[in-house]
Amino acid sequence: MAARFAASPSGDLGDPRPLPPHATSEVLTRYRRLMEPALRQAVTSLHPWGAHMAAFTLGWSDIDGTPLDEHGGKSLRPALAMLCAQAAGSPPDSAVPGALAVELVHAFSLVHDDIIDSDERRRHRDAVWKAFGVGPAVLTGDALLALAISRLAATDNSIAMGYLSRALVELVHGQTEDMAFENRPWNGDDAVTAEEYSGMAARKTGALLGCAAAVGTALGGGSAAQAERMYGMGRSLGLAYQMVDDLLGIWGDPAVTGKPVYSDLRAGKKTLPVLSALAADDPAAGKLEDLLLTGDLDDDTVRLAADLIEAAGGADVTRELAARHAGLAVEALGACFPGATELHELRDLCELIVNRSH
Amino acid sequence: MAARFAASPSGDLGDPRPLPPHATSEVLTRYRRLMEPALRQAVTSLHPWGAHMAAFTLGWSDIDGTPLDEHGGKSLRPALAMLCAQAAGSPPDSAVPGALAVELVHAFSLVHDDIIDSDERRRHRDAVWKAFGVGPAVLTGDALLALAISRLAATDNSIAMGYLSRALVELVHGQTEDMAFENRPWNGDDAVTAEEYSGMAARKTGALLGCAAAVGTALGGGSAAQAERMYGMGRSLGLAYQMVDDLLGIWGDPAVTGKPVYSDLRAGKKTLPVLSALAADDPAAGKLEDLLLTGDLDDDTVRLAADLIEAAGGADVTRELAARHAGLAVEALGACFPGATELHELRDLCELIVNRSH
Repeated sequence: MAARFAASPSGDLGDPRPLPPHATSEVLTRYRRLMEPALRQAVTSLHPWGAHMAAFTLGWSDIDGTPLDEHGGKSLRPALAMLCAQAAGSPPDSAVPGALAVELVHAFSLVHDDIIDSDERRRHRDAVWKAFGVGPAVLTGDALLALAISRLAATDNSIAMGYLSRALVELVHGQTEDMAFENRPWNGDDAVTAEEYSGMAARKTGALLGCAAAVGTALGGGSAAQAERMYGMGRSLGLAYQMVDDLLGIWGDPAVTGKPVYSDLRAGKKTLPVLSALAADDPAAGKLEDLLLTGDLDDDTVRLAADLIEAAGGADVTRELAARHAGLAVEALGACFPGATELHELRDLCELIVNRSH
Repeated sequence: MAARFAASPSGDLGDPRPLPPHATSEVLTRYRRLMEPALRQAVTSLHPWGAHMAAFTLGWSDIDGTPLDEHGGKSLRPALAMLCAQAAGSPPDSAVPGALAVELVHAFSLVHDDIIDSDERRRHRDAVWKAFGVGPAVLTGDALLALAISRLAATDNSIAMGYLSRALVELVHGQTEDMAFENRPWNGDDAVTAEEYSGMAARKTGALLGCAAAVGTALGGGSAAQAERMYGMGRSLGLAYQMVDDLLGIWGDPAVTGKPVYSDLRAGKKTLPVLSALAADDPAAGKLEDLLLTGDLDDDTVRLAADLIEAAGGADVTRELAARHAGLAVEALGACFPGATELHELRDLCELIVNRSH
């Protein structure tokens, strides 16, 4: 089951026109190409060993340094930054240092996250720590973060730097919450609440999307109020993003996501589909709780757990909430940049986040 | 043998007055007290789990959270930042956000360094990764770095932020060089040269000391030229610092340094005493090379290696170079802030760096 966008009364994205196939992926490609020369130049400035590991991290080369035709991630954040700069009335390349910075911070967070979660696979390849060792991976993450900060600092735009530093603090706070959740019980007074989940997701995933939008707005000459509004928009979008990630972490196709099937369930992650299912007034909720409390989960048990989560409505609730938060993000974009020609592409980006399969 | 300051013709610190006992440590205590409330407030803003690990890292509490009377490091960098702000004509607390930032970046680099080097002990206690696990330690380092950036970004001083980001990039570059040196041979065309060592040490250790001085100068209202000069001064001081660290890493008293005896020799580190000894025109140099090429070193062999390094003059050369670079730093301070009353304390700080036993 792939996570599909589910329009709901509160989650209507407000544009009934069908999305042309690959339109959004063309937008992403266009903006990635705008940013990439500066990103490659930045990576080249690293120590040769650091540059080698960074190129692997960004999907540009194999473990032995052989260049790859593919690229790494979806580059959603750079596109968001540059589209916001345009919506604020400037050419997209005004936001390149910001686009670069958020892409590098994103890469930093993935490299360190995979160490923290002991995740061995990322984007169909070995995680950086698995490929080069834990120490070199720690250093690679640090190098990517240092580059991000220095390239944005070079703009002398202290509003943009303020958003980057705010997002970094929130990101690490959210990662710490996520890690702390793993030691919390599935039931009882100390169980993780949906509210706590939302706070964690807004920080862990939303802050950097908010940063991308706010930094792009600031570098594009938008007002302080617009930048602040876009930071909030990104937090909504990040909530939607994380919820879809949760769905993919349980029901995503490993061939598409590049991660093992049911990986989040095996890891005991307190994701929204599980938390919603446990809180549901449904017999499946009780069965799920019993199952989770038994501890170590084998292949058959995780499959049964996934079915119980779906039966108790955990997937539907999560999909609806994701759509609602994406809808709020689209609303905020329209209110912040009324009449901007980039609103279509920004809306497509929000839809892509909710409709993606990886 | 403890590393002792060796005045040489080129390394004369230019002030024959004897250092009053504990004078410098009183200066360090005074400035640490000035910074500490803001540092504690910053740490408190972290996730409770992150704050717990950060408090352990900074030496404020034990692994179970019991508060300790002691403090962690020497707080050289905060003192340097605040003294430079004063020399530039402002009260020391104008530099508190900078002092805080460099202390946090220093702590971040130690936490990640201990993971990278698999060092189990730091300041007479378990390293953070040993105490809490590798994942939590990675996150603790990230949290300290994020805090550093956000507190300095809040000053809106883009010159100061420029120095912090520059130092971060250099620091990571130097750490990568240091790590890459470990895979280089002891002899032949690919052996590490003294020049390469200096570049690494200036980046790994000098950049953050330079950052402390430059950020303090900038926050204290000094000119851009003064800040740049102080960045260079800090690089000289950092070279001296790293050279003394190398001496302590071989001959330091484990009871004082908190690290195992001969630890750098066992780890095969390409430190200056070894590189200088290998390059010396002395029979001991050849014997040392033979010994190092045998590979794994047991207790007797490392002791013999240390003796050969000393016999070949590796310790003397390192001490003289450390004094020379500290002398250059003192000269730069005098030229940058002629007549400043803080010059005495700044000179004492430089002497402390060369004369320290841990």
